[in-house]
Parts: sequence; C-alpha cells; structure tokens
Amino acid sequence: MSTLLLSQDQVKELFTMKDIVEICEKTFQGFGEGTVINPTKVNLDLGETAAFPPYKGFMNAMPAYIGWTDIAGIKWAGGNLGERKRLGLPYVTSLIMLIDPKVGNFIAVMDGAFITNMRTGAQTAVALKYIFNNGSSEKKPIKLGLYGAGMQGHTQTLAISELFDIEEVRVYDVMKAAAEKYKKDMKDVVKGEIVVCDTPKEAAKGDAIVCVTQSKDKFLLDKWVKPGTVIFPMGSYQECDDAMLMNADKIIVDHIGQCLHRGALAELSEQGKITEDDIFGTIGELAAGKLSVGDYSDGKIVCIPIGTGAMDIAVASIAYKKAKEKGIGGTYSFV
Amino acid sequence: MSTLLLSQDQVKELFTMKDIVEICEKTFQGFGEGTVINPTKVNLDLGETAAFPPYKGFMNAMPAYIGWTDIAGIKWAGGNLGERKRLGLPYVTSLIMLIDPKVGNFIAVMDGAFITNMRTGAQTAVALKYIFNNGSSEKKPIKLGLYGAGMQGHTQTLAISELFDIEEVRVYDVMKAAAEKYKKDMKDVVKGEIVVCDTPKEAAKGDAIVCVTQSKDKFLLDKWVKPGTVIFPMGSYQECDDAMLMNADKIIVDHIGQCLHRGALAELSEQGKITEDDIFGTIGELAAGKLSVGDYSDGKIVCIPIGTGAMDIAVASIAYKKAKEKGIGGTYSFV
Repeated sequence: MSTLLLSQDQVKELFTMKDIVEICEKTFQGFGEGTVINPTKVNLDLGETAAFPPYKGFMNAMPAYIGWTDIAGIKWAGGNLGERKRLGLPYVTSLIMLIDPKVGNFIAVMDGAFITNMRTGAQTAVALKYIFNNGSSEKKPIKLGLYGAGMQGHTQTLAISELFDIEEVRVYDVMKAAAEKYKKDMKDVVKGEIVVCDTPKEAAKGDAIVCVTQSKDKFLLDKWVKPGTVIFPMGSYQECDDAMLMNADKIIVDHIGQCLHRGALAELSEQGKITEDDIFGTIGELAAGKLSVGDYSDGKIVCIPIGTGAMDIAVASIAYKKAKEKGIGGTYSFV
Repeated sequence: MSTLLLSQDQVKELFTMKDIVEICEKTFQGFGEGTVINPTKVNLDLGETAAFPPYKGFMNAMPAYIGWTDIAGIKWAGGNLGERKRLGLPYVTSLIMLIDPKVGNFIAVMDGAFITNMRTGAQTAVALKYIFNNGSSEKKPIKLGLYGAGMQGHTQTLAISELFDIEEVRVYDVMKAAAEKYKKDMKDVVKGEIVVCDTPKEAAKGDAIVCVTQSKDKFLLDKWVKPGTVIFPMGSYQECDDAMLMNADKIIVDHIGQCLHRGALAELSEQGKITEDDIFGTIGELAAGKLSVGDYSDGKIVCIPIGTGAMDIAVASIAYKKAKEKGIGGTYSFV
C-alpha cells in the first residue's frame, strides 16, 4: 500500500493563506457542530520544563478526526530553544500522518511546520471574523497591536488581511530590527500604516491586540488596554498580566481542556482562579452560530486559540487531496 | 534534511525476537530508573465506543523518550473491527516517527505494526523473567495457559520461549481451527506438548496464563485458577472476571495511568473498586531491582503490560541505528 509523502515546499505550493483561512473556518464550524473529534493534546517534555532529558524542547501529539474531509490524522510538533535555536533552525519541527479512518491505512506523511505556522494565523483571523465582525464576510477596517514580529507576526497579519482591511499595525518586538523587517515585509499586506514601537505600552492599542511571543514576563498590562478590544495571547507561556485575564468581560478559547493546561490561562487555572466556568465559549460555537459575543464596547474579550490538531489535520487532508489530483509528492510502501 | 523510511519487511529483516526481548528488558529497566519518559497515551475514538464517526476503530498516540538510545518518537497505532476486518487486513495499523531529541529533526518514519506485535510478546516474557524467575537469565521450565491463538498468541509464545523452556501450552480459541493452526506453527518453539482445549476452563492451568483476545466477556474465572499462577489479561477489554482482579495477591502493571484507563482494570477502576493504591508496582521497578514479588505460592499475581510507546520507540530506535549501518530503507526530505 502506497503512502503519499509531501515536503514542506510541496505543501507550500498547494495553498494560499486564503485557502487555509477557509479550511480553518469550516473546521471551527465542525468543532461547534460536533463533527470534529479532537482529544486534548499530549505533551512529551524534552527539557522545556523538566530537568531530564536536558534538551530545552517539547513535542505535542495532536490527533484529530475531521468530519467534513472524512480523514483522521495526527500532528507531532514541537519547539526547541536549545541546540535547534543555536543552529539557527526554525523553532517549529513537525510531521503529520494521515489515515483513511474507515480502514485505518496510512495515506500520507507530510511536513507540518508550514501548516502549523499558517493555520495559527488563520485561527486568529477566523476568531476575529466572529468576534469583531459578527460572522460577516464583508471586509471591515481593523487596527492591530502586535507583539512579536517573527514568523508568527507575519502569518497572523497575512491571515487577518484576508478577512479585514488592516488600517494600522502597531508592532513591538524585543529586537527592534525584527520589527523593522516586519514593517518592510508587510507593507503590501497592511493597507494603512505600520508603526514600529519603542516600548511595549505603545503597541497596546487597536481593535485587536495579538501576542505571538515566547515571553514568560506578563508584559501586556490590563491598564494599558481600552474597553472594546479583543486580546489574543497566543504564546505558550504568560504574556498578559493576571488582571487582564481576571477582568476580561469574556474569555473565548478554541479548546477548553487544552487552554486550561497550557498558555495564557495555565497559571491561573492551576491556582484555581480560572476554571471552565469562567470560559464564555469556544470559537467553534461562534462559527457554528450557537453563540454570539454581542456588544463588548464596555469590556474586553480575551480570545485564546491555543492551537488544535484539528486545524492541522484539516489543512493536511486538503493538501493530500490536492496533491493526489496534481500528482505532487513522493510515495513509500510502509506495508 | 533526509528522513529514513522503513517498511514492515525492512524492519523485520533487522530483528530476531531475542533482540526485541533484550531491548524491552533494557527499556523496562529505564522505566524503573526514570530515564524513560512515557506520557499516558491519548486515544482517538473512531467508533470503537463512540457513535461518531462510525468506523469501529481507534488510534492511540504513544510518544516516548528513551534514555538508553537517546531518541524520542511517537507511535500512532490502532485497530479496526469494521471495514479493515471485512477486507481481511491485519487488526493493527501503525506508523512510528522518530526525532533526534536534541535538535528536533525527524530522523525516521517506519511501519509500527510488526514492532507492536513483537514487543507485546516481549513485554510478557520480560515480566515473567522478573516475576516467575526472580530476574534470572537461566532458562527455567514453564507451563502456559493461552487464550487467543492468533498473531499475538504466536508472538507471546515465541518471546516466552526466548527466556524459558516451555514444557506445555494449553491453548483455547473461540475458533478451534486457529488453535489447531497455532499448534502446528509452534511445534518447534514449544519444547513440550501443545494441548488444544475444547472449553475455556481446560486452558486455565499453568505457571502463567496469557490472554490475548478481543473479548469483553470476562471468560476467565478466578475459581478455575490455582494459587501460584501469574495471569496476564492483555486484551483491550475485559477477559477476567471481577473476582480475579479483586482477589489478586498482587497487581503489577507496566504503566499505572494507562492501565487504570484501558484494558482489564478499566471497568473496576471506573467504579472506584480498584485504585492506584491496589497496584503493587511496575514491571520497570522489578526490572530495575527496586521491587521484588517474593513468594506468591499462596496467591495469584495479575500482571498487565497494556503496552507502552516506550517499548515501540526503543525498538524503532534500534531499527533506525541498524538500518543506517546496513544501508537499508528509503529516504525523503520533508524539510
């Protein structure tokens, strides 16, 4: 039995960001409708927090079944701030395996890093469509604050530009050169101005504030941010101060189990200060029309799409189908 | 970067059962010593118990890091009693991915079904070495009762024969023809007699009783089995009656978290009748010399090696190293 193999470059050829935003939207709808199965990811700690082994990395196993593509798969993906960083390799390492869920045969193995980066941007864009634009497909103007001008800063902007006209980005990065590079790279994607900020406070302004950093410093303060803002703390650690999370009008997540155990909510959840009851609902429920945020001009919304395997597997499913049609990729007979 | 690809046939070429028993023993020792990291596996239900999707299958994600090979990996493996069974394909479907844990690069993708089958046999053999033979490498005579004469019946016997002289096997299978075939296949592996049994009760006799069935019927009754016996209920469901589990002198498992949630103990664990406190210890603790069972001639020992990703990843690590040495396998550049 032949298994399709796709490299990162081959996967890249198959998609525009527009495609990926559409796939993520359908998959969020499937989440809300119950046709997407996505168990809580399982973490293998390779020294990210544990003392042994001492490799400053981790890997997350993220299996999912996608009703609307009728394919199941798993992404195994991680990051490494040790030797990998020292060698100048990209932070994310990832491979995806797909099966035909009816028979259980392995139909594809492909790179997952490109898909991870793209879908992480797309998730934010789709969430904003349902929170900030009431589910409308009409392109509304939007102003953004952005923390982190690396790969994710780029893909977040790219994805949001598919669904909105970006009027302004205020960007902050601990390395100012990265923010300057972002400004150059994104000049055709952002319709309005890109303002490179010298201090974190200056970037805390906009309809949405997106944090894509590896910070553990709680740098984004509640008192800086006006009511009527949607805040996306997307990092694996702690980017907002506790007040931001405790005072939020509504907390919206992609996956309740995962969001309570990793990322922005993990610390307060462990302390028992934030529980499942404090979560207003999921992006899936919004996308499926089961829930709506209403007017939030007097409060703030914290939205955390921590990242689900479902998004990756959905994109990979479509990559598999497109590659088969176009005759792209290698093959190997594992059995 | 080139990733090694190995098919089932290529993996088969690299190993004898003796090799796999040795690898599993070292890995159990690593478990006991704390140099093997093995999070609880995560299940994706594709209709094994859930109503949707309706495919009568499941997939388990089993990541692990192996200290003594210094490789991390994940096995994604499952079974399917629907379309897969109807097509006459083997029950197990599985693929393994390995990374260099220091950098996070994917070094290999290989079939996992052969490894799964072999290591499942090897686990029992190693457990018996420490329970029935006090850790000695000297081949002691052993008598076995065996339920299930399929693939697993064969590999269990093969693995046990590496560490013991098998004096008798009493085998029962719901399909008598399977038991007859087993008798023919195993005649050179089993030194003594193979007795094909007409009823389950007749097979409930020996130094060890191994159940490798897909039964949910609790067919093995406590009252049939003499004190001084080690019972291995290896299936995913319920093979022993409750009395067997409740009255056991000692319960020994490979992985406490996993064994309380799947297989023989799952039902009583869910009912709160068996908890972590009822588990005497792990095979890893026995293999590392941190625990010993002592004399159990007056009681029964229930041993449940439900199966850990660590065993698969350890075997796959060695497959990778051997294949690189020998120049076996394909390659693909995913990134």
